[in-house]
Amino acid sequence: MPYVNIKVTGGNEAPTAGQKAALIKGVTELLSGVLGKNPATTVVVIDEVAQDNWGLGGMSVTEVRQRNRKA
Amino acid sequence: MPYVNIKVTGGNEAPTAGQKAALIKGVTELLSGVLGKNPATTVVVIDEVAQDNWGLGGMSVTEVRQRNRKA
Amino acid sequence: MPYVNIKVTGGNEAPTAGQKAALIKGVTELLSGVLGKNPATTVVVIDEVAQDNWGLGGMSVTEVRQRNRKA
Amino acid sequence: MPYVNIKVTGGNEAPTAGQKAALIKGVTELLSGVLGKNPATTVVVIDEVAQDNWGLGGMSVTEVRQRNRKA
Amino acid sequence: MPYVNIKVTGGNEAPTAGQKAALIKGVTELLSGVLGKNPATTVVVIDEVAQDNWGLGGMSVTEVRQRNRKA
Amino acid sequence: MPYVNIKVTGGNEAPTAGQKAALIKGVTELLSGVLGKNPATTVVVIDEVAQDNWGLGGMSVTEVRQRNRKA
Repeated sequence: MPYVNIKVTGGNEAPTAGQKAALIKGVTELLSGVLGKNPATTVVVIDEVAQDNWGLGGMSVTEVRQRNRKA
Repeated sequence: MPYVNIKVTGGNEAPTAGQKAALIKGVTELLSGVLGKNPATTVVVIDEVAQDNWGLGGMSVTEVRQRNRKA
Repeated sequence: MPYVNIKVTGGNEAPTAGQKAALIKGVTELLSGVLGKNPATTVVVIDEVAQDNWGLGGMSVTEVRQRNRKA
Repeated sequence: MPYVNIKVTGGNEAPTAGQKAALIKGVTELLSGVLGKNPATTVVVIDEVAQDNWGLGGMSVTEVRQRNRKA
Repeated sequence: MPYVNIKVTGGNEAPTAGQKAALIKGVTELLSGVLGKNPATTVVVIDEVAQDNWGLGGMSVTEVRQRNRKA
Repeated sequence: MPYVNIKVTGGNEAPTAGQKAALIKGVTELLSGVLGKNPATTVVVIDEVAQDNWGLGGMSVTEVRQRNRKA
């Protein structure tokens, strides 16, 4: 009966439909394998977050990526 | 002062504006009726999740719907 | 297949087991009634938040309640 | 290592890229200043919520804004 | 840079510290394997939810478990 | 009308009531200053997460802290 929310950056870093299916399958199997949870009622929600809307180290990912390209 | 988050599938299953208004009204009245919470400060946020991004039973809803159509 | 998260204040304002059951039943019926969602796969999670940990108007609820008692 | 999620209304009220950068910088500095948290591992996610999908006082923000314009 | 939140039932169904470590390791490896995400900045938060506070099928898990024992 | 959720580690790293009040005040002022949001309807929820339940770099914070002490 677990609920899993996965947040990753979107835009040009967005996962493909195949990668999202692999995340859903993988995390459902992980919860079944580690905790014996029933896959039939395991819910997974993936959020793709715009790079302007994700911050790390006090900067948006947009800015982090620009700095990395320059460096 | 409650906060409620409702996640449902979007795309061709997305709720209409009228249905979203009915959810907001209904859940606000429920919290007022059951717990006596003040509607004026009850916050509701509805997230519409793409069908590729929602997993149940280890599969995306996109795949669940395709299997149901075939069956 | 919806997922609902309800956050309310805890401590001396915490809902009873009966009130929590009424919230779960009520919101599941709301989603079934408004959107035709299947109750069997509707997940509800209630979080009880300590009054020091909930802020409104720039103050914790602990302080909001103290001011209301004095007023 | 903190995680912060900020939800605001989107559409014609959506924050600009500059405002989002200011929120990310400001909240990261707040957590560093108040709790001594390491900015390098402080994660911030901003969600812009459609005005039909945000409820306050039992109404969507769309409806709240319409009533305010009329009043 | 992903963020993962895993919610499971607590109380007598709560995961052990070892199981929680296995979930953290497993989901971090999944995101690295499927999406190439950097494990160093992958954040995982596990919430253990009281059985009275988790609803499925319109009932709390407390009631679901009682019915299953009787059946 | 914004909603902010702040997650930090708890246990022996838990913020004091005074620190939590400072976070609530600070983030509410940030949203008012940057976006002109009304403090009266700004909601803040702080979650204190057990160190076994928070993962970074594929390990729980409990293990991260033990390694740092040994190093």
